[in-house]
Amino acid sequence: MERFRPGLPNDITFPDKPREECGVFGIYAPGCDVARLTYYGLYALQHRGQESAGIAVADGKKVQLYKGMGLVPEVFSGDQLSQLKGNIAIGHVRYSTTGASHAVNAQPLLFRYAEGVLALAHNGNLTNVTELRSQLMAGGAVFQSSTDSEVIVNVIARSNRGDLKDALTKCMIDIKGAYSLVILTEDKLIAMRDPNGFRPLCLGKLDKGYVVASESAALGTVGAGLLRDVEPGEIVIIDENGLESFQVLQPRRRSHCIFEYIYFARPDSSIDGFNVNQVRRAMGRVLAEEYPVEADIVIPVPDSGTAAARGFAERSGIPFEEGLMKNRYIGRTFIQPTQDMRDLAVRIKLSPIREVLAGKRVVMVDDSIVRGTTSNKIVALLRDCGVQEVHMCLSSPPITRSCYYGIDTSNEQELIAAKMSTEDIRRQIGADGLHYLSLEGLLNIFGASRDSFCTACFDGNYPVEVVKPQETGKYSLE
Amino acid sequence: MERFRPGLPNDITFPDKPREECGVFGIYAPGCDVARLTYYGLYALQHRGQESAGIAVADGKKVQLYKGMGLVPEVFSGDQLSQLKGNIAIGHVRYSTTGASHAVNAQPLLFRYAEGVLALAHNGNLTNVTELRSQLMAGGAVFQSSTDSEVIVNVIARSNRGDLKDALTKCMIDIKGAYSLVILTEDKLIAMRDPNGFRPLCLGKLDKGYVVASESAALGTVGAGLLRDVEPGEIVIIDENGLESFQVLQPRRRSHCIFEYIYFARPDSSIDGFNVNQVRRAMGRVLAEEYPVEADIVIPVPDSGTAAARGFAERSGIPFEEGLMKNRYIGRTFIQPTQDMRDLAVRIKLSPIREVLAGKRVVMVDDSIVRGTTSNKIVALLRDCGVQEVHMCLSSPPITRSCYYGIDTSNEQELIAAKMSTEDIRRQIGADGLHYLSLEGLLNIFGASRDSFCTACFDGNYPVEVVKPQETGKYSLE
Amino acid sequence: MERFRPGLPNDITFPDKPREECGVFGIYAPGCDVARLTYYGLYALQHRGQESAGIAVADGKKVQLYKGMGLVPEVFSGDQLSQLKGNIAIGHVRYSTTGASHAVNAQPLLFRYAEGVLALAHNGNLTNVTELRSQLMAGGAVFQSSTDSEVIVNVIARSNRGDLKDALTKCMIDIKGAYSLVILTEDKLIAMRDPNGFRPLCLGKLDKGYVVASESAALGTVGAGLLRDVEPGEIVIIDENGLESFQVLQPRRRSHCIFEYIYFARPDSSIDGFNVNQVRRAMGRVLAEEYPVEADIVIPVPDSGTAAARGFAERSGIPFEEGLMKNRYIGRTFIQPTQDMRDLAVRIKLSPIREVLAGKRVVMVDDSIVRGTTSNKIVALLRDCGVQEVHMCLSSPPITRSCYYGIDTSNEQELIAAKMSTEDIRRQIGADGLHYLSLEGLLNIFGASRDSFCTACFDGNYPVEVVKPQETGKYSLE
Amino acid sequence: MERFRPGLPNDITFPDKPREECGVFGIYAPGCDVARLTYYGLYALQHRGQESAGIAVADGKKVQLYKGMGLVPEVFSGDQLSQLKGNIAIGHVRYSTTGASHAVNAQPLLFRYAEGVLALAHNGNLTNVTELRSQLMAGGAVFQSSTDSEVIVNVIARSNRGDLKDALTKCMIDIKGAYSLVILTEDKLIAMRDPNGFRPLCLGKLDKGYVVASESAALGTVGAGLLRDVEPGEIVIIDENGLESFQVLQPRRRSHCIFEYIYFARPDSSIDGFNVNQVRRAMGRVLAEEYPVEADIVIPVPDSGTAAARGFAERSGIPFEEGLMKNRYIGRTFIQPTQDMRDLAVRIKLSPIREVLAGKRVVMVDDSIVRGTTSNKIVALLRDCGVQEVHMCLSSPPITRSCYYGIDTSNEQELIAAKMSTEDIRRQIGADGLHYLSLEGLLNIFGASRDSFCTACFDGNYPVEVVKPQETGKYSLE
Repeated sequence: MERFRPGLPNDITFPDKPREECGVFGIYAPGCDVARLTYYGLYALQHRGQESAGIAVADGKKVQLYKGMGLVPEVFSGDQLSQLKGNIAIGHVRYSTTGASHAVNAQPLLFRYAEGVLALAHNGNLTNVTELRSQLMAGGAVFQSSTDSEVIVNVIARSNRGDLKDALTKCMIDIKGAYSLVILTEDKLIAMRDPNGFRPLCLGKLDKGYVVASESAALGTVGAGLLRDVEPGEIVIIDENGLESFQVLQPRRRSHCIFEYIYFARPDSSIDGFNVNQVRRAMGRVLAEEYPVEADIVIPVPDSGTAAARGFAERSGIPFEEGLMKNRYIGRTFIQPTQDMRDLAVRIKLSPIREVLAGKRVVMVDDSIVRGTTSNKIVALLRDCGVQEVHMCLSSPPITRSCYYGIDTSNEQELIAAKMSTEDIRRQIGADGLHYLSLEGLLNIFGASRDSFCTACFDGNYPVEVVKPQETGKYSLE
Repeated sequence: MERFRPGLPNDITFPDKPREECGVFGIYAPGCDVARLTYYGLYALQHRGQESAGIAVADGKKVQLYKGMGLVPEVFSGDQLSQLKGNIAIGHVRYSTTGASHAVNAQPLLFRYAEGVLALAHNGNLTNVTELRSQLMAGGAVFQSSTDSEVIVNVIARSNRGDLKDALTKCMIDIKGAYSLVILTEDKLIAMRDPNGFRPLCLGKLDKGYVVASESAALGTVGAGLLRDVEPGEIVIIDENGLESFQVLQPRRRSHCIFEYIYFARPDSSIDGFNVNQVRRAMGRVLAEEYPVEADIVIPVPDSGTAAARGFAERSGIPFEEGLMKNRYIGRTFIQPTQDMRDLAVRIKLSPIREVLAGKRVVMVDDSIVRGTTSNKIVALLRDCGVQEVHMCLSSPPITRSCYYGIDTSNEQELIAAKMSTEDIRRQIGADGLHYLSLEGLLNIFGASRDSFCTACFDGNYPVEVVKPQETGKYSLE
Repeated sequence: MERFRPGLPNDITFPDKPREECGVFGIYAPGCDVARLTYYGLYALQHRGQESAGIAVADGKKVQLYKGMGLVPEVFSGDQLSQLKGNIAIGHVRYSTTGASHAVNAQPLLFRYAEGVLALAHNGNLTNVTELRSQLMAGGAVFQSSTDSEVIVNVIARSNRGDLKDALTKCMIDIKGAYSLVILTEDKLIAMRDPNGFRPLCLGKLDKGYVVASESAALGTVGAGLLRDVEPGEIVIIDENGLESFQVLQPRRRSHCIFEYIYFARPDSSIDGFNVNQVRRAMGRVLAEEYPVEADIVIPVPDSGTAAARGFAERSGIPFEEGLMKNRYIGRTFIQPTQDMRDLAVRIKLSPIREVLAGKRVVMVDDSIVRGTTSNKIVALLRDCGVQEVHMCLSSPPITRSCYYGIDTSNEQELIAAKMSTEDIRRQIGADGLHYLSLEGLLNIFGASRDSFCTACFDGNYPVEVVKPQETGKYSLE
Repeated sequence: MERFRPGLPNDITFPDKPREECGVFGIYAPGCDVARLTYYGLYALQHRGQESAGIAVADGKKVQLYKGMGLVPEVFSGDQLSQLKGNIAIGHVRYSTTGASHAVNAQPLLFRYAEGVLALAHNGNLTNVTELRSQLMAGGAVFQSSTDSEVIVNVIARSNRGDLKDALTKCMIDIKGAYSLVILTEDKLIAMRDPNGFRPLCLGKLDKGYVVASESAALGTVGAGLLRDVEPGEIVIIDENGLESFQVLQPRRRSHCIFEYIYFARPDSSIDGFNVNQVRRAMGRVLAEEYPVEADIVIPVPDSGTAAARGFAERSGIPFEEGLMKNRYIGRTFIQPTQDMRDLAVRIKLSPIREVLAGKRVVMVDDSIVRGTTSNKIVALLRDCGVQEVHMCLSSPPITRSCYYGIDTSNEQELIAAKMSTEDIRRQIGADGLHYLSLEGLLNIFGASRDSFCTACFDGNYPVEVVKPQETGKYSLE
């Protein structure tokens, strides 16, 4: 159990807009223990969500669901897994910002409607959910959670008149924003990805079936090989007749989330054609080109800065070192230092190696700064060890805008780069130099695909219109 | 944590028809800690349901919900209670027959719909739920649980066009069967009881507000006094304008559940005009009249047979004794005896007092026999202590039919009295005599009100038509 | 999980002198699942201690131990029980007054010493433990807990030079006070009872072995029959050679704890020749003779006053009624009412039946009053229901002195009867009459055995000299 | 929660000889929250033991202890920490091989003896513990655990006649083997290290006090600076008079555990003059010199092979890459793959990056091979990704002998290098090349200090005589 966002503490909560980063997984594999394979798949996606986990299994006739709060191995016991028998399964891990009562938001959600049973796991964030919900409620719908998923199922239920494919198509036309969905019926596994392709979703092949997952790293864990990514605007239906694909909406300009490469995804995943580790390495190389500095060593802020730091070292010729150790045991129940021990807060999580650092001019590579509350402490830690110069390099451009497509960035007032110049930030964090990767440099890494990414959090170019939620208090559920 | 149904083991499960006995509670009390009072109210109703517990609280603007699996004190911590702030609250305890995945069935349920937010707690069983659900699904509704409550809310949501009172009235017209409902909106507490008055529901008065509860015993626990029962077919709405009552449906022939008096309710509750303890005492007296036997002592099967045994002793002149002790610690996690220790199973729960029993002719009074799997063991236990004669008297007539109004009897194939004559049952349980209270004798206890009760489980006279559920597998949720 | 001492709240703690009421159990039964049988035996003794539970099992060669904090079914899972394989077992349940860190005090304790392995479970309280511990420490002994048991084992270890019987004899000569001990070695089950016979200990017979237990009620639970009580001053050794008995010390004047009959023991137990239920019934009859009062009904404070109330009704001819219902679900985690709800505190636990009580003159029978903090609330509860007169009768004489033989009474400053006259107490609790059973009347119940009991808590006649502990702070362990 | 020994599975258990790798911590800091600082100190040492954790605190008069099974943050809640008030504290984390019943082995242990109270935390393994225990038992001592610590305290208790310093000196003379001890009395913090200096122990300085810890990395976490290592054969006593040091035994030939550098210790610790990270880097460089191979990339088995892999890359000029990702969430409750999924077992924990590996000749650096059960699976994983050649390099010589000084290696029959030649091992694991770091090369890294290390597990030169335990079954405790 460790913290996953060095610059984005878990304790920032947005009760007004529950948006989260999640991981989804689905498997169609007659004859296999699909619940257990989903368990391993979710486990490989654990970094995408640590708050809740759930698995739904279908055996051709009925659908069973088990979910709970906590990490995958905390939620499931062997007994529970064994009871989930079937040929098809979907799973979900969820990162969120909230308390116990939100167990109701854990996924997959399981619904019975006129045409049968449907379970759904969702990664993303709809931008027209308020509008959709209002329309649905006007038609008599009731909602038990604040999840987009419940809205999606109601949309499907309203339009399904015996032809699921048709209903899914209508659904895709109605819902706007970011969504990578896996859906389970009594006998089908379905995958859908929004026409912009915001969130990742890939397709894998087993000897006896198929797998869909947020990241390709989850395929290897269950012994599957990567087939391809699910296309933006595509619906994939897998059942006893095999795999059927529908390009429902022509992919608009692709808008893959570039932050998956910068920070979220596992280095061993390949997303929409690019291996994450290779991209991060390249970011480091570009950083070295953009920021030619004289220094003695390059160190990462572990773990997310490691690949970029290596790329920086490679290109610059400055030796790579591990100057900071990360304590891997920080968990949810960890007792934080009291006020008077505040200077220990960073030391408990990051420990500098004095032998590596003392007397050196250091380039320190991190992935991003969001609110800017930690970087100054890390710089101070280095100074305490006798570091002479600290040059901080970030493998992302300055984050100046909020994300509305499934990532829980801070709201704009809290984003340090929305309020201060790079020079002011440098001064505040106490570094001798501060360099953000240029957006241009970042995009160039992807070559011919350089226009296939969403860069809204850097430049405000939101690919899909965002309606800010203004729901009144009288609807509030908790 | 103890088992509550000597003749009706917890391990009888009906996956096909999840009907349960529950307890509901509601309070409107501005200025009071309504969550904590609901906690005590539910605690007083704990015998009506030990599987899950939940509380929803409204503060005039928003509604908060907390619920979980387990006994009331297991589900709520002091911290959680403190976070539930408001002026109005409802609560629910639920007895059920199923596993962990049914957390989704825990109540209250909380819904957002076009007109606002609504939380609902239900005791009873609708008889036209399949039909209603089909109609609603045909209109696009989706269901996340197998509870009647979700159906009821959908019915309300469909018909509510700005006038809640109107929508509740329409709802009462649409739903059939047994229901005692407490409903919470942002600023109202609502109570509804079906026109037959199957399940109990009473109204209490606080200095500063009102209470509704399944049983009057829950009123004293929160310092309220009994005002009256909610009438069959009545809707009560309590808000800042005080209490308003609507006799929506003219009460048909009342059909109060007579098993509340025989077994379910607390002895210190008064339901529809009769104190439970007094009724049980009278049952014993009638038993003594109906079954004049020579015996040395009268003993109860504790605890539910105690009051009737006392009545029997009173009328017959045969001394009352406590010949069986009940171990009060049997809990969910108790490890059952293995096959080869099977004869210990009863001894662990019931312990005979040899000094009281040896050499005696014993009248043993119990409330009822359902499947007949335990009585023979208890009789054998007495014989082991040197009891000379065992006369078993039951304070209910033979149960020969299933209940469809909110009680989880076995299905008819398992009901021993549906399959065997009283004489055969006597022989099977090894008693020297066996007497069931006559239905006539039972009803006479209630004097002029003798026609106000449902006796369907004894004579098959179902007051409300029952549609047996035949839902197909494809809808099954778990 | 319910509270067990109506007049003796759990929250009185004595950090200075950790004395507790406990239950012990032992079984020698080759070929049987002795761990599971001990589980049922402890379960039957659960009322003697709810804080911790433990079982040690021997298989002829080695000894295994499992123990933990909580009720018997909370401490043991089926898996854990299954791992405890062997022919001999002992078990212990412990009532105590303290926090988590005292897990170190849970029993049985398991020791290795020069002659082998020895596990020990103890009920009682040594009166010379300070002196013994000092002597042992002077000889180099170290102590890891504040239990008497650790002292006893050290005493045995010091004197055992290859002859266990001899060592046990020496031990019995050295230790003073109250002890009922069950001891387990690799191949033997041993039971020892102090020469005064303070705490109960009985011997039972199985088809294939023997059982020892604090109360005979635990014998039936495992299918054993009562053979006899272990004699004061007797050591019983059970092994493959059968049962051997040694009357090590001539029983001095017997000093059986009379409070076992008044309050602690189960009604279905027989201790030193007297059935507890019968004795309690007799107490009620004597009360009725000593306190002839005109009244309409006799009610017990449930559950401990029930048998005596019945005896009172029997002798006086005043009808017995159940006027107070006890809520059986009060557990450790129950959230207590806040200050402003204080008048609810009693109502939550005890609920009056108005129909029984209103307008009546009531004799209320309880077992004892210790600090006098609850009785006034119960009396007020009755008055609220319209009771006209309340006569409180107690089946024990006034408690004026502390116990040093294994019962956790309050210290003398807190005992209400040590500070106030009966008339003052009556006024304080608000009763119209108050009568304590006379010591003379109490003892007469036992006929020729009337001099075989310890009555120190009533009259200060301590049968064994008590050295008040004055250990210095520097030794304090927590 | 992750496993920490890639080559040494947790499931090897040694019921006969409970030896473990542990971490100890002590602090003397009047005016500070010593319990909380110890919590952070233990947290920094968590890698040395994940089974149990405990803290003892002294306030000058009394000593309090809290300990439990699990990781540091699992064992302690904020409330519990807050109750541990004082000026001095010691703590312990323990790695072990056994089940729940060994809670009794959790440390620190707390003892009362003739001269007061003493708590003790131990890292190491005594070699004459059987002999000592027998002597002590012959003198009447009893033992409640199988820990060396209990033996040590008894040794101290026997010889302490009012002069603690004297008793500690005598103790050091009596006990043989490996021990780094921290001891707490009511008002003193004591540190002792065996005359060979097997296990690490260092001394740190706070503004207002002192710290002792197994590794220097724990000093920074509490804001302390490294003063020096505790010398072999030294006793340090810290109290209100400051720090006093006694060189009790002249250090014999130093025998520091060389495996601390190879595998156990944190890279950011410095032990006996050498920084662990630097040493590991040097190991890699020596490996590159000893094994000149043509290859395309050097990859580590994460995390323990990383530093050495970097050193190898540095010296060889072959590019360093991260070709294997480690899943960081593997915890105790993780559900292992079933038999038929066995080939997934490694994939769940280690995930290869195909983009890095395909078509390459790879040097893979790991720290050690113990039983050889995992390496073949990792090699196969690489082959699956299209790796052309796999050269496995280990930063330790072959392990051929068991450790008796506090490390839980397998017994010799299970050590692969004790049974097979390097060539046979290479063939078994399926590598194209296999090279172990030479002992000569390893020792040379330490220059002039090259003779200060224990290399028994490589060459069988045991610095302190080992008496193999042959305790009979009758003493066995569990």
